[in-house]
Amino acid sequence: MTFQSYFESRKTQHLQELKEWLSIPSISALSAHKQDVSRAAEWLSDALRLAGLEHVSIRETKGHPVVYADYLRDTNLPTVLVYGHYDVQPVDPLHLWETPPFEPNIRDGKLYARGATDDKGQLFLHIKAVEAFLAQGLPLPVNVKFCIEGEEEIGSPNLPAFLEQNRDMLAADYVLISDTSLLEKGRPAISTGLRGLCSMQISITTANTDLHSGSFGGGVPNALHAIVSLLDSLHDKQGRVAVAGFYDDVPGLSAMERDEFTKLAFDEEKLKQELGLDAMYGEDGYSFVERIGARPTLEINGLYGGFQGEGTKTVIPREAIAKITSRLVGTQKPQDILDKIERHLLAHVPTGARLTVKQLEKGNPFTIDPATPVLQKAADAYESVYGKRPVFTKDGGSIPIVEAFSRLLSVPVVLMGFGLPDENLHAPNEHFNLENFDYGLLTITTFLQLLAEKDK
Amino acid sequence: MTFQSYFESRKTQHLQELKEWLSIPSISALSAHKQDVSRAAEWLSDALRLAGLEHVSIRETKGHPVVYADYLRDTNLPTVLVYGHYDVQPVDPLHLWETPPFEPNIRDGKLYARGATDDKGQLFLHIKAVEAFLAQGLPLPVNVKFCIEGEEEIGSPNLPAFLEQNRDMLAADYVLISDTSLLEKGRPAISTGLRGLCSMQISITTANTDLHSGSFGGGVPNALHAIVSLLDSLHDKQGRVAVAGFYDDVPGLSAMERDEFTKLAFDEEKLKQELGLDAMYGEDGYSFVERIGARPTLEINGLYGGFQGEGTKTVIPREAIAKITSRLVGTQKPQDILDKIERHLLAHVPTGARLTVKQLEKGNPFTIDPATPVLQKAADAYESVYGKRPVFTKDGGSIPIVEAFSRLLSVPVVLMGFGLPDENLHAPNEHFNLENFDYGLLTITTFLQLLAEKDK
Repeated sequence: MTFQSYFESRKTQHLQELKEWLSIPSISALSAHKQDVSRAAEWLSDALRLAGLEHVSIRETKGHPVVYADYLRDTNLPTVLVYGHYDVQPVDPLHLWETPPFEPNIRDGKLYARGATDDKGQLFLHIKAVEAFLAQGLPLPVNVKFCIEGEEEIGSPNLPAFLEQNRDMLAADYVLISDTSLLEKGRPAISTGLRGLCSMQISITTANTDLHSGSFGGGVPNALHAIVSLLDSLHDKQGRVAVAGFYDDVPGLSAMERDEFTKLAFDEEKLKQELGLDAMYGEDGYSFVERIGARPTLEINGLYGGFQGEGTKTVIPREAIAKITSRLVGTQKPQDILDKIERHLLAHVPTGARLTVKQLEKGNPFTIDPATPVLQKAADAYESVYGKRPVFTKDGGSIPIVEAFSRLLSVPVVLMGFGLPDENLHAPNEHFNLENFDYGLLTITTFLQLLAEKDK
Repeated sequence: MTFQSYFESRKTQHLQELKEWLSIPSISALSAHKQDVSRAAEWLSDALRLAGLEHVSIRETKGHPVVYADYLRDTNLPTVLVYGHYDVQPVDPLHLWETPPFEPNIRDGKLYARGATDDKGQLFLHIKAVEAFLAQGLPLPVNVKFCIEGEEEIGSPNLPAFLEQNRDMLAADYVLISDTSLLEKGRPAISTGLRGLCSMQISITTANTDLHSGSFGGGVPNALHAIVSLLDSLHDKQGRVAVAGFYDDVPGLSAMERDEFTKLAFDEEKLKQELGLDAMYGEDGYSFVERIGARPTLEINGLYGGFQGEGTKTVIPREAIAKITSRLVGTQKPQDILDKIERHLLAHVPTGARLTVKQLEKGNPFTIDPATPVLQKAADAYESVYGKRPVFTKDGGSIPIVEAFSRLLSVPVVLMGFGLPDENLHAPNEHFNLENFDYGLLTITTFLQLLAEKDK
């Protein structure tokens, strides 16, 4: 039986299993879901065991556990370490979901659920690819190890220590990750760069209580006035980040690099229509793909203070809170950038406002040379299934742990994604296009076979 | 028996009754509390009936009902119309209340509850003052009418129509309202000015969905960036409102008026300490009492968008919402000011952001000449109880309906307040100092007696 007919015959069963996993609300950011995160880890270890993997174990960390499994056939064969994550993003605003985020639903050939593409759905393909060899009694062409964490969506706070402590167990020739996207439907892509990520929460307080806007309005500081002034100071009118030294470690774009971006022929008009944008927006002098792939950002991800109910409340709020993240490129260091933002904020706090800064996540940027032989084999695998050679892209997203894998295990990291850019990652109505579910399984089995071949 | 001993003998009973009323969460702004607002109206009409008032009735409006009652002894006597409100402000943030807002609690001689001073507690004094005459078989020195609404905290949308439709029923020589404050403990004040109030809700949208800050960050508009830029444009660096024409109808302060404000000898340092402020803040060139009493404001009362949970969420929010109010003085007109703010906002919307404006409340400013005879009688009443003649102040707050009473019934409005400026109106831990509960009852009974005397 070809792999294609094997996967076709199992498709209903596979989707049923994936839906079961997607029903578990494993939101790592919310402590109320701690038990759900554990349940998702248990489900995963059962699935790995059923697939035929060995040494399946749930390894405790200071946070959510890591799930490990392997199938080590022959020390002469190359070893692939598959990384992924079983945790998911929060789901608010809940009312914008067309079907509930943890009641997986297939419509128009797409599987809708939180985690459908990021990352349960993509990770599931690797389990089923390995199972496809073992279940058919075929020799697995390589040794495989799985190292799956439950804290990716909160910045992998405990995985670097886990990697350092388990270097021998995790030793491999390649790291393989599916947590990125095609360029668009039918156009595969291999990411050779990921932006780093750092984040903070800031709060502004002005008084020890909320105040009546009649008795005090116009005569005392307002925490919301202070925070909008402070936050507005973070960018200039050209869309550049106005924090001193922010761009110090950002490499300029060479003519060749700009040329590569241009070759992607990215359709900005189409994106505007899809997302309902009136205009693109960003740093002057760069195209959308350059802004996303090669430039750092500073974004406000959340902001709140004062009255949020119906109608009017005549209150002067005493406190306002904002969530801020930066995406990093080149040799920008998360700690350095957080410190620079904090210095900027301290220097711009308006009269009568007190600032508190809580630094949160810190992940380095990652890059790999597209000429690396294993990336060319990945490209061959994609080409054999999709009929098109993938482009090498710089991805705007961050998988903070990729740089740590690359640095701590000293091996190439292959970012072989099967998502699509419009699948609403981190937003309501996240979904996974089932065309890439089918193609993904075939691409991975092909890639594992190609890996066993000698490098050209 | 003197009124003083009468009120002392009934104090426990009176406080018990008031606590019962304060236990009803009659939040007019929240539709979930509609039934509670009705219950508060019923409780009030029962209390008026028990006090001996006649023609007690609950009058339906398009919103929450008006409660009417009267006691008409003699057409040759002057008639006083008491206005107040039985609705209260919302209570969030709930976690900052030391005792629950609707479980009234007395500590340190203060009654804590939402509505304790604004306005159930103050209004209650008038009911008990009338009852004190009738229960003791004393002739009521004037005719009284009560007109109590349930929509003051949402801007009295239906009361002006009610006043127009019921001019005959409500006809009076004076309107008497207790919904303001002493200057400070032991220093009574009569307000001869109230700021007007207008409000709006604005929303900014940038996309049809929240977006992943990795895949899109830096390349698309962010609703929070747009709203902080827009809101920050509303004030200049001197604390002035930057909306074109905003100050057109604001009278300058004469030397005499400034002198009166100076004579109040308001202690800004003490206020800073009480409220935990690092600095006072407001329009350059004015003192705190001038800013509150004689200058208009534009305040952001609420702001929200994006992620509000624990930790980090890497999202580009598609929508952000702000609540805005202006306090008005002089001959500023609410509709004109709302239109000017809306024009400013439209002219400053950042690239890629769509603005929606919903205009809400509209209340005119109010002023009355301190030389008006009825105000001098009110001053006499205060002086006889507090031992100090009240100052005539301009109050920063708004009772939107005061100007309507003054205009539609063409009679003087007496603002005889018994609150204190630090009693947390519209904030957590609202309370009413029971010294003013006792003094208030005596001041009102004295005032009703003085009203029966011929004008000097």
